[in-house]
Amino acid sequence: MLPDRAFFDSLADAAKGETLPRFRTGTLVSNKLAGGFDPVTEADQAAETAIRDRIIQHFPAHGILGEEHESIGLDRDLVWVIDPIDGTRAFISGVPVWGTLIGLYQKGRAVMGLVDQPFTGERYFADGQRAWYRGPDGERQIHTRDCGGLGNATLFTTSPHIFQGGSYDLYKAVESKVRLFRYGVDCYAYALLAAGHIDLVIEDSLKPYDVGALIPLIEQAGGIVTTWDGGRPEMGGNIIAAGSHAVYEEALAILQGKA
Amino acid sequence: MLPDRAFFDSLADAAKGETLPRFRTGTLVSNKLAGGFDPVTEADQAAETAIRDRIIQHFPAHGILGEEHESIGLDRDLVWVIDPIDGTRAFISGVPVWGTLIGLYQKGRAVMGLVDQPFTGERYFADGQRAWYRGPDGERQIHTRDCGGLGNATLFTTSPHIFQGGSYDLYKAVESKVRLFRYGVDCYAYALLAAGHIDLVIEDSLKPYDVGALIPLIEQAGGIVTTWDGGRPEMGGNIIAAGSHAVYEEALAILQGKA
Repeated sequence: MLPDRAFFDSLADAAKGETLPRFRTGTLVSNKLAGGFDPVTEADQAAETAIRDRIIQHFPAHGILGEEHESIGLDRDLVWVIDPIDGTRAFISGVPVWGTLIGLYQKGRAVMGLVDQPFTGERYFADGQRAWYRGPDGERQIHTRDCGGLGNATLFTTSPHIFQGGSYDLYKAVESKVRLFRYGVDCYAYALLAAGHIDLVIEDSLKPYDVGALIPLIEQAGGIVTTWDGGRPEMGGNIIAAGSHAVYEEALAILQGKA
Repeated sequence: MLPDRAFFDSLADAAKGETLPRFRTGTLVSNKLAGGFDPVTEADQAAETAIRDRIIQHFPAHGILGEEHESIGLDRDLVWVIDPIDGTRAFISGVPVWGTLIGLYQKGRAVMGLVDQPFTGERYFADGQRAWYRGPDGERQIHTRDCGGLGNATLFTTSPHIFQGGSYDLYKAVESKVRLFRYGVDCYAYALLAAGHIDLVIEDSLKPYDVGALIPLIEQAGGIVTTWDGGRPEMGGNIIAAGSHAVYEEALAILQGKA
């Protein structure tokens, strides 16, 4: 039996109790990678621990894949896929668009997911069939939108410098065709796509926990999310998410060098 | 006599009454520039009208410079400088980092300013001597921080593609020296700088209303804001804002081609 919304909410609340009090308080930052700047905050680690403790207590037979701690039982039927703070760079810069991502995979397929935005008080949730929004402006079922085609689309990506090698030119070719593009909001972009505010998100080199919670949100809101070769996105990689088939097909052809 | 905080708040509240109800509701977007995409929303225009009406009613002798409507009395001692929605592209994309900017110039010098973030419920205010923050996490006086030097700095800009001609290479030279850079938050970046969360903001081709309200906020929080040639920023142009003299001097030397 799959867990219910109340259980997902309890995980998000537990994480929020660790993240929000540390936001904008000069949290210590350490370097995970020598030579790079990959910030890990206390908040990240404490939030993942809080989520894992609740899962282990209530669903000891489930597996867990998180960003900060060791994986557990990845071959089990149900596996939680967790990013305690997606947008750590936003978090340490005081920008309130970071979020907590909690996804659930069933036999390798993402089936439920929650995106929490603690500072803004917004929560996006995919219950297995439908996608929902709760926030300061109310609660409602959400749907992706169909803007008609790539020329009318609003495109988001975290930053153009994330694209490696030939991916950069392919990304730029899509960017040159859209009506409006923006950088910088991490997981929030996928939530905006699920809620029908934007049309396209393209990113490079994602990990499973960067995208696991977002897949059901997008799909159950009526959108499409795959890798750039059109395959399932559960394991991450180069990811494209679109609000409609028309935008997806046009963008994918460019990313595959076919247009 | 200068207006008080309550009057600034009343202007921000009036604008919020026009912007927030239209956020994420599929507001109509029109094109201001043929051939470009310069979105103007109903919310922009209605919010500026609401602010101007109150100013004209209470301070008929003051001048007004706004983004959306005609200027009034720019040669008067006190002139209001208004951007009803800074970050229109964020607004129409559903991203909650747009803000309302309300500045006051006295004999051409920015002396008071308010930055309102209606969706997040945050308000930054420079009262003529000190800078203040109010938000979900409380109210406090704010100060810029001194991170020690450019190599430790967090740098923000709206987007690298805003830089025109040689400005792009100069900006990129600064970007290559910092610890962390981010794109995409418009006026919010200056507010984060004033509050001591980030260290440097560099932008190109700003209008007076893009920066007017931000100047007193940064200066009264202890920071520095000038044009790239080191002059006063009240008329916009290429702008640099820094939290400390060390970061400012290092970045400015690069922008001026001296380092």
